[in-house]
Amino acid sequence: MSRQGTRGVDPRKVNGELFTLTYGALVAQLLRDYEDDDEVNKQLEKMGYNIGVRLIEDFLARNNSSRCNDFRETADIISKVGFKMYLGITPVVSNWSPAGDEFSLLIENNPLADFVELPPGHNNLNFSNLLCGVLKGALEMVQMDVDVRFVQDQLKGDNITELRLKFLRRLEDAIPVGED
Amino acid sequence: MSRQGTRGVDPRKVNGELFTLTYGALVAQLLRDYEDDDEVNKQLEKMGYNIGVRLIEDFLARNNSSRCNDFRETADIISKVGFKMYLGITPVVSNWSPAGDEFSLLIENNPLADFVELPPGHNNLNFSNLLCGVLKGALEMVQMDVDVRFVQDQLKGDNITELRLKFLRRLEDAIPVGED
Repeated sequence: MSRQGTRGVDPRKVNGELFTLTYGALVAQLLRDYEDDDEVNKQLEKMGYNIGVRLIEDFLARNNSSRCNDFRETADIISKVGFKMYLGITPVVSNWSPAGDEFSLLIENNPLADFVELPPGHNNLNFSNLLCGVLKGALEMVQMDVDVRFVQDQLKGDNITELRLKFLRRLEDAIPVGED
Repeated sequence: MSRQGTRGVDPRKVNGELFTLTYGALVAQLLRDYEDDDEVNKQLEKMGYNIGVRLIEDFLARNNSSRCNDFRETADIISKVGFKMYLGITPVVSNWSPAGDEFSLLIENNPLADFVELPPGHNNLNFSNLLCGVLKGALEMVQMDVDVRFVQDQLKGDNITELRLKFLRRLEDAIPVGED
């Protein structure tokens, strides 16, 4: 599905329950298609990636953020601007690695998984894996290669949902066509 | 995916662009799975139906609407309360049949199809067919058997997107278990 047109100034808001149920329908469809949890996780990440590389345009257009100076600033923008703007939540940034190249986003009420119960026998399913892809895709578009994965999930009985982000490397700036 | 728990008082809002992209991923997946447009339409309606029968609970809990006196009142509630609450738009109610048993919802900026272009060769795809299912499922839960279908779609080059609702019959009230 390609997209065209100009963006409105005011971002439209949609009811969270409708979003959650629609996302649930997507995951359920993938479970029917692939059966294997790891494959579903992979597909969700791939879909998320494609969403992320598009959302970032919208994000940059709506926020006059200049380039982040370090990964700590990136973490804050992701949590306080990105998550806030798209999902209405502000995850806690936590568990920094000593080198400052890894942190966690702690999510207490994951909107993607609101009222969801994992179907039995799907312990390897990362239900909200779309999020990993969205973050990975969006960050790549601002020249950051980042590993994103779930390390805890309330759907699996953990006390909190924890997304771990690890900075891998800065990507080469792509030179826009005609601007070399 | 089953759901549990209590509902919050304040409905969470999610960014419309994220919703549109997620919905687009769902449609794209169904196109890969079924290839045939009619089958995709059917699957979208089925998914929507399952969403509708769940959303209506939330809708009734949040709105102290009493039972509608006639189909005209139903039309108004769907447009001004339902669409407004879940998608942030208020379709125009129009094109009433003389008998008052059929009307159209005219939608100018369909949030499900924002920035979407139909892939070539999919002229029979009703991209937003999920909506038909949502309305059908929700209305069935309040004892109304209603036919819902798209008769115009801006994605297909029409000037407006038009959803047609036709009242078929009033369903028997189901007697809740233990309340006979």
